[in-house]
Amino acid sequence: MDYQNASVDLHRAKRGKLEIKSTFPLETIEDLSIAYTPGVAEPCRKIAANPEEVYALTIKSHSVAIVTDGSAVLGLGNIGPHAALPVMEGKAIIFKRFANLDGYPICLDTQDVDEIVETVKRIAPGFGAINLEDISAPRCFEVERRLVEELDIPVMHDDQHGTAVVVLAGLLNALKLVGKKFEDISVTISGAGAGGMGIANMLLNAGVTHMTMVDSKGIIASGRADMNPSKEEMAARINSTGRTGDMTAALEGADVLIGVSQPNIVSAEMVKRMAAQSIIFALSNPVPEIMPDVAKAAGVAVMGTGRSDFPNQVNNALAYPGIFKGAMMARRKITPQMKIAAAYALAAFVKEPTPEKIIPSIFEPGLADTIAQAVANT
Amino acid sequence: MDYQNASVDLHRAKRGKLEIKSTFPLETIEDLSIAYTPGVAEPCRKIAANPEEVYALTIKSHSVAIVTDGSAVLGLGNIGPHAALPVMEGKAIIFKRFANLDGYPICLDTQDVDEIVETVKRIAPGFGAINLEDISAPRCFEVERRLVEELDIPVMHDDQHGTAVVVLAGLLNALKLVGKKFEDISVTISGAGAGGMGIANMLLNAGVTHMTMVDSKGIIASGRADMNPSKEEMAARINSTGRTGDMTAALEGADVLIGVSQPNIVSAEMVKRMAAQSIIFALSNPVPEIMPDVAKAAGVAVMGTGRSDFPNQVNNALAYPGIFKGAMMARRKITPQMKIAAAYALAAFVKEPTPEKIIPSIFEPGLADTIAQAVANT
Repeated sequence: MDYQNASVDLHRAKRGKLEIKSTFPLETIEDLSIAYTPGVAEPCRKIAANPEEVYALTIKSHSVAIVTDGSAVLGLGNIGPHAALPVMEGKAIIFKRFANLDGYPICLDTQDVDEIVETVKRIAPGFGAINLEDISAPRCFEVERRLVEELDIPVMHDDQHGTAVVVLAGLLNALKLVGKKFEDISVTISGAGAGGMGIANMLLNAGVTHMTMVDSKGIIASGRADMNPSKEEMAARINSTGRTGDMTAALEGADVLIGVSQPNIVSAEMVKRMAAQSIIFALSNPVPEIMPDVAKAAGVAVMGTGRSDFPNQVNNALAYPGIFKGAMMARRKITPQMKIAAAYALAAFVKEPTPEKIIPSIFEPGLADTIAQAVANT
Repeated sequence: MDYQNASVDLHRAKRGKLEIKSTFPLETIEDLSIAYTPGVAEPCRKIAANPEEVYALTIKSHSVAIVTDGSAVLGLGNIGPHAALPVMEGKAIIFKRFANLDGYPICLDTQDVDEIVETVKRIAPGFGAINLEDISAPRCFEVERRLVEELDIPVMHDDQHGTAVVVLAGLLNALKLVGKKFEDISVTISGAGAGGMGIANMLLNAGVTHMTMVDSKGIIASGRADMNPSKEEMAARINSTGRTGDMTAALEGADVLIGVSQPNIVSAEMVKRMAAQSIIFALSNPVPEIMPDVAKAAGVAVMGTGRSDFPNQVNNALAYPGIFKGAMMARRKITPQMKIAAAYALAAFVKEPTPEKIIPSIFEPGLADTIAQAVANT
C-alpha cells in the first residue's frame, strides 16, 4: 500500500486528523447556563479557593501538550513547526486511542533552548503533562532536563525514552530466548542522536555494562574530534578505555546491535563478526540498517525493526501512551525507574516469547493500562 | 435551576468539558501507517515544500487558541490561569457547537504584557486564530493591538468585541422600533473596562457621535484624576467639551444606556431622566444594572440583559464563533468593518423585530454561518 499518498489524501480530506469534542450537549439555553455562564463561575471559584480542584474539574488531569520546535521531524530533519504538525497530530490521536489521554499539538516558532523552556513553562497551567517531540540533539537534552526540574507535571522527550523503553522490553524477551544476561552482554548502539542517547541511558540504568556507541564518524571516544558535550559525556561513561574504530570494529564480538541511524550501513560481513546467538534491532525507518533476511542469513538469532511489515516492530507508540497515563495517574514526575518498570510490563505482556514475537502488538487490549499501572506503582 | 451546582457536578463527572477526537479510525497497523509513520512523512514534506499546504493538510485552518492569563475572569477578577480553565473550556465547546471550529484552552502562567505577546507568537504556528479572553484592562488593549500587528492570523479579544458586536446588532433593531437613527442618538455607557471600551469603539465606528462613558468615579473626562491611558484616550475622543458628573448627570436626556458595570447601580429615578422611547442594555451578570421590570415601569421602550431568563439576551456567544469562522475562511485579520458586518448580519437574522425580540437565539440554525459569510465578504 502507498502509505505516503494515502496519508496525504487522508490529511487533505479531513484537514488534519483531530478535532475537539464536547463531553456535554449544548442544545438548550439551560445547557449553556450550566457549561458556560452563569454556572461556570462556581467551578472557577472552587479552583481559586483550592488549586487541587483543577485536576478534578478541568481537562488538566488528562491533557498533554505535544510540544515541538520542528527541528528533527521523523527522518526529515529541521523542517520547522508548521511541517511538523501532521506528526504531532498523529501523536495526539495515538494518545487518545491507546490511553484515552487528550493531547494537543503545540508547534513552537523558536528553536532557542531558553525560549522553548520559558514558553512551555508559561503554557503549562492548562496541561497535565508535557510530551516533548522531534527536538534535535543535543538541545533536546537540556530542554528536557530543565523542564523536568522546573515544572511540577510529568515531562518526557519521547524520542529519547519512548523507543528506549520498547528496545529494553524487546531485549528482555530476546535475551531470554538466547539465554544471555544483561550483565554479560556487549551492546553496540549505532546512532548518537536523541534516540541513541535515550537507549544508552536506559540500558545503563537497566544494568548493561558493556556498551559501544557509534556515530557516522566511528566509535564515540573521549577526545575524538567533532563531539558535542552529550557525546563527550557518554564516552566518559561507556568507553573509559578509549576504544576507537569503525562500525566493523564496534560489532566485533557484540551480542546486540541497536541501530537508530542510517539505512543499509550494516553488512552481512559485519554481522558475521558478532557473537553467536546475536540480536539486532535495526530501527532506521523505513529502510533499516540491515534487512531482516540478510541479517538472519548471516546468523542473527532475533531480529526487530521499526517497520510494521516485519515481525517485532519496535514502535514508541507501544510505550508513551501508557507511561504518560501512569505518571499522570500518580501525579508524579517520570523517573528512570518508571521507564524500566514500563519496559518490564511491556515485555511481560508477551506470554510466550518466540524469535518472531518478542514485543506485543499495540492493539492488544489493556496494554497501555498495564504499563500505566506499572508506572504508577513504581 | 441551580446552575452553579449543576456546573460543578458536570465538571467533576467529566473532568472538564472537552476531549480530543480522532477523525480517522486507528484499528489496524495499516491505519497507523497512514495516520502516523511512515505515511505521515509525506504531508510533512508537502508543507515543508509549500507552507500554504499547512492550511489544507492540518488542523490549522480550524484551530483556535483560546488564550487567557486569568486576570479578569467573568466577574470573579484575577483568579489566575488554573481557575480560568473552566471558562476557556466553555468557549471551546461553544466554538465547536456553533461554528465547528476547534478551540483549545491556553492558560498562561504570566500576566506581563511583553511575555503574553511573546508566548502567543511562539505558539501561533499550530493555530489558525487567537481568541484572547478574560485579560484585564488596560493590559488587554496593548496585548491585542500588538498581536494583531505582529501575527498574520486573525486575533481578537472577545471581551472587547464579542459583546460589542451583539450590542450593535441589538441597537440596530431597537432603533428601528423606536424610530431613531445612529447619528442622532445620545448613548451612555456605564463601565470603562474591556467591554465598555469595545462597545464605545464599535459604536463610534458605526456612526454614533454623541457618547458619554461613566466609570465608578463618574463621567470619563480629560484631566480627571485616576484615569488610565485608555480612558484618557477615550475621553479625548468622546468628551471634547469636558462634561463631568455622576451617573444621574450622564443619563440626562440619553436615548440609550449600555451597562457593562455593576449590579443595581441605575435607579428608576435616573431612567426617568432619559429621553422618551429609551433603550437599555443592562449587561452586568447575573444581576443587571437595573432589573427589566423596574426599567419598563420607568418608561424604557426596549430592554436587554445578559441573562437567559429575560428577553433579548446580549450574549457574546452569538457573535464570536461566526466572526472567527469568517475571518479564518477569508484568511484575513479581523477588522472593525468585519465586526460591523457581523452586527448587521446578526440584526438582519431577526426578520421582524419586536421589543421582546431584537436579537436572535443562539440556537437558530445557520446563524454562525451567516455571520461568517458576512465577515468573509467584507
